[in-house]
Order: sequence, then C-alpha cells, then structure tokens
Amino acid sequence: MAEPGRVFADLKATCPEDWQAYVGHEFVRRLGDGSLPEACFRHYLGQDYIFLIHFARAYALAAFKSDGLEDMRQAAAMLDALLNTEMSLHVKYCAGWGLSEAAMAGLPEADANLAYTRFVLDTGMTGDLLDLLVALSPCVVGYAEIGAWLKADPHSDLTAGNPYRDWIEMYAGREYQEVAQAAVQQLDRVARRRLGEDASAAPRWSRLAAIFATATRLEIGFWDMGLRPPG
Amino acid sequence: MAEPGRVFADLKATCPEDWQAYVGHEFVRRLGDGSLPEACFRHYLGQDYIFLIHFARAYALAAFKSDGLEDMRQAAAMLDALLNTEMSLHVKYCAGWGLSEAAMAGLPEADANLAYTRFVLDTGMTGDLLDLLVALSPCVVGYAEIGAWLKADPHSDLTAGNPYRDWIEMYAGREYQEVAQAAVQQLDRVARRRLGEDASAAPRWSRLAAIFATATRLEIGFWDMGLRPPG
Amino acid sequence: MAEPGRVFADLKATCPEDWQAYVGHEFVRRLGDGSLPEACFRHYLGQDYIFLIHFARAYALAAFKSDGLEDMRQAAAMLDALLNTEMSLHVKYCAGWGLSEAAMAGLPEADANLAYTRFVLDTGMTGDLLDLLVALSPCVVGYAEIGAWLKADPHSDLTAGNPYRDWIEMYAGREYQEVAQAAVQQLDRVARRRLGEDASAAPRWSRLAAIFATATRLEIGFWDMGLRPPG
Amino acid sequence: MAEPGRVFADLKATCPEDWQAYVGHEFVRRLGDGSLPEACFRHYLGQDYIFLIHFARAYALAAFKSDGLEDMRQAAAMLDALLNTEMSLHVKYCAGWGLSEAAMAGLPEADANLAYTRFVLDTGMTGDLLDLLVALSPCVVGYAEIGAWLKADPHSDLTAGNPYRDWIEMYAGREYQEVAQAAVQQLDRVARRRLGEDASAAPRWSRLAAIFATATRLEIGFWDMGLRPPG
Repeated sequence: MAEPGRVFADLKATCPEDWQAYVGHEFVRRLGDGSLPEACFRHYLGQDYIFLIHFARAYALAAFKSDGLEDMRQAAAMLDALLNTEMSLHVKYCAGWGLSEAAMAGLPEADANLAYTRFVLDTGMTGDLLDLLVALSPCVVGYAEIGAWLKADPHSDLTAGNPYRDWIEMYAGREYQEVAQAAVQQLDRVARRRLGEDASAAPRWSRLAAIFATATRLEIGFWDMGLRPPG
Repeated sequence: MAEPGRVFADLKATCPEDWQAYVGHEFVRRLGDGSLPEACFRHYLGQDYIFLIHFARAYALAAFKSDGLEDMRQAAAMLDALLNTEMSLHVKYCAGWGLSEAAMAGLPEADANLAYTRFVLDTGMTGDLLDLLVALSPCVVGYAEIGAWLKADPHSDLTAGNPYRDWIEMYAGREYQEVAQAAVQQLDRVARRRLGEDASAAPRWSRLAAIFATATRLEIGFWDMGLRPPG
Repeated sequence: MAEPGRVFADLKATCPEDWQAYVGHEFVRRLGDGSLPEACFRHYLGQDYIFLIHFARAYALAAFKSDGLEDMRQAAAMLDALLNTEMSLHVKYCAGWGLSEAAMAGLPEADANLAYTRFVLDTGMTGDLLDLLVALSPCVVGYAEIGAWLKADPHSDLTAGNPYRDWIEMYAGREYQEVAQAAVQQLDRVARRRLGEDASAAPRWSRLAAIFATATRLEIGFWDMGLRPPG
Repeated sequence: MAEPGRVFADLKATCPEDWQAYVGHEFVRRLGDGSLPEACFRHYLGQDYIFLIHFARAYALAAFKSDGLEDMRQAAAMLDALLNTEMSLHVKYCAGWGLSEAAMAGLPEADANLAYTRFVLDTGMTGDLLDLLVALSPCVVGYAEIGAWLKADPHSDLTAGNPYRDWIEMYAGREYQEVAQAAVQQLDRVARRRLGEDASAAPRWSRLAAIFATATRLEIGFWDMGLRPPG
C-alpha cells in the first residue's frame, strides 16, 4: 500500500514553483515577522469571511457527491466545522480587529475571491468527488503547512509583539493540523478507490494535476489581493 | 405577516386526496394497530436505510444552494442529524429487527425508492432552494403528522403488544415534532423571501404545487412498496 | 488499442441476464410479432414523450460536464437531435396513433419513468461524464440492438399488417444505428481517457457496472410499465 | 402586458454606472477608433476562446434547468450556435490575427476569465433558470449594445483602416442583434412566469439585481484584462 499522504505529495510535486510561491508568499512571510500592514490583514479577513461561506458550500457539494457514508460523514463534519466553529471563531477574531459580521457580510466580493471559490465549485459540479477534493486541498492542507512553517521559521516573531501571532498559532495548532491530516488521508482513500494504488500513473492524473495547479495559483491570487487593500 | 405554517398548509390544500392517501395509507394504519406483517416492515426498514442516505444528500444540496448562513446552517443541521443521529438510531433499531447494517447496505434499491429520492434530488438541481424544500416537505412534515395522528388515534395500539409502538413514539415524540416544525418554518421563510407574503398567489405556485403533489404521490408509492416485500 | 465497442461489450457482460430481460422483453417481442395491445403501445408512447424530455436534459448535462470540445459537440448534437428531430418525429408518429402533443404534455409521469430518468440525471450530477454516459448507454445502444434484432428475427412480422413495423424500421434503420455507434465510440474514448486501455481492470469498474445494471433494470421496468396501461 | 425588454431595462437601471463603465470601457472605445494595441486584442481573443467554451457550458446548463420545451430549445440553439458557429468563426477570425486554435487551447486561463465564467456557472447551479439567464444577459445583450453603439458613434473609424472593423460589424450586424433580442425576450418570458408582470416588484428582485451587477462588474474586469496583455 502506498505511504500516507502520497497523493497530496505527488500533486505538489507537479507544480513545485507555484506551491512555493503560495506557501512562501510575501503576505505569509509578513504575517510571520509581523510586518504586514494592518489594512492588508483587515482586507484579507473580510474577504476570508466570504470565502468561508463558499468553501462551506463546496463541502456540502462533497457530501452530495459522496458515494459512501464514510466520505459523506467526513464532508458533513467539515461543513459543520466551517459553519459552526470556524465562522464563529472568525467572526470573534475579526471583532478584535474592528470588523463586525454585518460589515463583512456587506463587503463586495473581490474578483480573486470569486475566481477561486467558483472555480472550486464548478470543478466539483463538472467532475466527481475526487476532482472536488483535489481542488479543495491546496487551501485545507496549505494553511496547515503555512502555520507549521511560520511556527518553526527563525524569522517569525512569535512574541506578543506580532499582531498575527494568534493567526499563526491557530493554523500551527494541533486541532487544525489534524483537520489537514484528515483531508490528506481522504484524498489517499478516494484516489485509491478510483485510480488504484498509484494515482500518478492513472490517465486522469494530468487533469487532476491541472486542477491542483489552478487552485494553487488562485491561492497566490488571494494573497496578492490581500496586499492590495481598497482605498 | 402570514400565520406560521401557511405555505405548507396551502401546499397540502392543493392535493388533499393524495395527502390523505399518504398519511392514512394502509401501511400506516397497520403500523397503528400492529397488524402489519413483519416481512413488510423489514422490507420497509431496509429500503428506508437507503432512502436516508439520499435524503441526507438532498440536505447537503440544500446547504449548497442556500444563499444565507441561516438556511445553510439549518440544512447542515439536518444533514448532520440524518447522518449522525437518525442513521445510527435506524441501524440500532433495525438490529433489533434482525437487520444488520451490512445487509441493508447490500440491498438492491427498490424502484419506488429510486423514483422518490432521485425526483427530489433532480428537483433540487433543476430549481432553487425553494423547489428543493417543497420536494422534501411531504416526507419531513408528513412523518410528524403520521406519528401524531397514530398516537392520538383510538384505533392505535400503543401497548407493548404492538411491535411498531417504538416507531410511532419516535415520530410522535417531541424531538421529531420539533424537526418538522423547523422545516415548516423554513418553508415559510424561504417562500416569503422569494414569493412574498402570499406564496399561493405567486406565478410559481402551480409549479411548486406540482412538485409537492408528485413527492406526496411518491410517498404513497413508498408505502405501497412496503406492502410488497420481495420473495 | 482495444477493439471498438469494448467498453460497452464489457458492461453488458457484467449483467447478461438483466440485459437479455431488457432487449428480449415481452413488450419487445410483441412489437415484433404485432401482438402487443394497442393500449399498451399508446401508454408507452405517451410516457416516452416525457422520457425524451428528461433524456434531452441528460445530454445537456453531458455537454455541461464535458472537458473538451469533441465531447461537448457530441452531447450537443444528441441534445439537438432529441429536441428538434426525435421529438418532432415522435409527435408526428404519435398523432398517427391518436395522441396529440398537448395530451402527452398533460399526462402524469409514471413512476417507472421518474425512477429511470431521475436516476440517470442524478448519476450525472453525482459523478463525472463517464458515469453519465454509462447510465445513458443502455437506452441509446439497447434500442439499436432491439431494432436490429427484431428486423432479423424470423418471428417478426415486417409486413404492413404489423402496426409496429414503422417503429421497428426506425430503430433498425441506418440513421439510428449510426447514432448508437457514435455513443459506443464515445464511451470507448471517454473511458480510455479516464481509465486507460482496459476499463474493466480499473478500480472504478465495479461502480460503473452497478450504474449500467441499474439503468438496464430500469429499462425493464419501463417495458413492464408499457404492459400495464392505466384504466 | 409589460413592454418587451422591460426586465433587461429594469436590471440595467439598477446599476447604471457599472453598465456604462462596461459598455463604454476604454477597451471598447479603442476598438471603435482603432487605437487599441494589437497585443491587447490578441490577448482578448485568446481568452475569449476559453470564455466561449464555458459560456457554451452555461447554455447547456440552461437547457438542463429549463422546465418546458420552448426554453430548452432556445438554450440548445444558443449552445449549438456557440459550439458550431461562433467558435468556428472565432477560430477563423483569430487565424487572421495569427492565433491558431491549438495555441488558444493551450493558453493559461486568466483570473478575470475564471472569475466571470465560474460565477455565471455557479449562479446557475445554485439558483434556477431565471438566475442563470440574468447572469448571462450582460454578455449576450451588452455586446449587441456595444456593437450598435460603436457602429453609430461618430468617433468610430469604420474604414478598412481600423483593424477592428470586422469585430464591430459582427456585433452590430443583424444576425447578432437578433440573438440578443431573443435573449431579452426570453428574460421577459421566464421572469413573467416566475415573478409575474412586474419583475422589479418581486421579493427576489434585489437578488437578481445583485447577480446582474456582479456579472456586469466581471465584464469590466474582462476588458481590464484585455488592456493588460502578458509579458
């Protein structure tokens, strides 16, 4: 049997430069050393509120498209976590940054947000559960990688002086790391059931790699957007 | 403002004979007086297991199609309840009737089941959230009506001598009645937002009534199936 | 490279008895020898009108789900043929049997029709293009097989005395045979792109075979329905 | 009965500034006077090839979601026109600009393209046929308005000296104007069936207006993209 995490690792290996540009983006590095302008972070937080709603819709779609109870339950658990835990945490966290839920709900959605979320949703509608999980993976797993890396990086400022320390701790924390691990394992499982032991040798692989690369590129676009607050 | 439950009451009023044929079906009456052959009930339970999976998928679709957090959360709560409470209860309950989960998962799906569940899902894909909620309502709300009626009906046998007493008590019970009430209220709310105060005066009403009548008719077909156990 | 038609042949080989029960159904045999009661045929024609609409919707879905222009164009051509040629022929043909389009449009949809068409549509929504094409194939290709077989069968009455002769000639005719051939070839092509040279060795095969068997079984249900005209 | 084109006119009236920014965009004006850099036009043409594919998918979705033959046939005719006429014309036209179909098929999809097309597709999946037609209308009808305006505008150069003259003539031409008129009429018809005579008084109107404004804004983003050719 293939080693755990093989499918996700193989997907990353198809676009190493895009992946690095995403997880090591200037926005990320400046979260780490605390130098990110607060207007950028607030812009990011507001758009992330909208993002989470569509991301939750994507997990609802994954539940709809699952052909077994295990996958349905995993997707439903993500949906529940996003709607009832993540969004509440996000709202509470944003309140600390002076952003009310009403204000965020009224924000115009940035094009980078539209492009990313609707690409994921359309990929899910067009293809099967595996296509959808691949499109979701750069976000779910990438944030865990970013959190862990910032936590370990000597350039990071993890003192109370870094206004983004809580953000880093959240994604570096055990709870989020386990969520990402579960997503990686589901990818292995669903890929095995559809493509066999070596997913990367399957005829569909190039299409899956293209989905992964596009989603990763759209994550870069999301960070780029964060660096350009309106007004 | 229209009285609570108005939309559902108006839908029922468009097909009173079909509705009565469903909630007062021979299968239901024989659950009430305990005279239903056990082979019929077992056949019903096995198909209901498959039904619950597709019904859960329909609520996942409702979460995907919601355009606000309140509706998303209500749909996600139903999905969670179906996957993590109802199905577990069902599996445990069925074990008492000698049906293992593995056996139910391997059953061929009856045509009446395919017709009903896929009609609901296709109605949801084709239309909007309101079309989908209307298609779901005969089941969610009808079972509460059936439970309450059997509990109150003097012909019912609510002693330990009726092997279906637990089934009646479950749907007559407060917990399930509240689930049905929440569905009725969501229907009011979503219809008001899309059709205004008097849904039955809206141009779309005849189409919604047709969806409701078809779903009700397919519930009748489901009970009919229950009365015809294979072999 | 695998021989043409391999995927469809392999699918049939997974459920030979169901396949035979479908293509050699009593309804089919009695079309062949002309002994089918006309009420049965009229009932079938009316339901087939509704069926064609949902079948057209399934090809629209196939166009939506295609990831290349060749498949999009093939699905769009089927959609166009169904809406603009088949339905017109059907309406004209039915007029000869005393069924007006208005009458057919007002018919209640039989449960067997709902079960079959909505199963195909939900299979398409849930899975990818290959799942959908597999679900569509028993109808498209099966009718060509039925037509060719009736035409060649010594028990068939191909004289003007058989009221169903035109029906047989239509499906045995070169035009329809070519439509079916194109569907068989598309199945080969799409399966090769997703599963490789030997589709039947792919992990997904058992799921595809289950879709095929269910669709075939629902075709049997459609013929059964034809034998039971209402009233 | 409301005057023809009322729904589309009312939608435009909800966002007059965005609409003007779209139809009178710098990209458009410079097509008119011939001053647009050719690199911009080539960039636009390449992305438009990808756009047309997803736009065709959106009409396939409209056919799938139609609940009557008239709407299905209109959507199928648009799908056919896009796949078999527009795309061929586009490919032929692009060849004149030194862009081969193979080159266009290999282009990376711009974020502005992803945002626009996937927003339209997701709007269609989430809502009903009316939501989808509203999302499609700024493109279909806007291009007719742009063509007619450029053709009539005294600042336009309609001599052979303007390399974009053919483009203007195509969208100003009778054939395209009729396509746009048919889309406007379908919007009236579908809105009347779902919202009644005065669509703008229906509770759903604000949501439809939001869809229209977002699609218009994404058209602006598409022209903006055209002004920024890569490299």
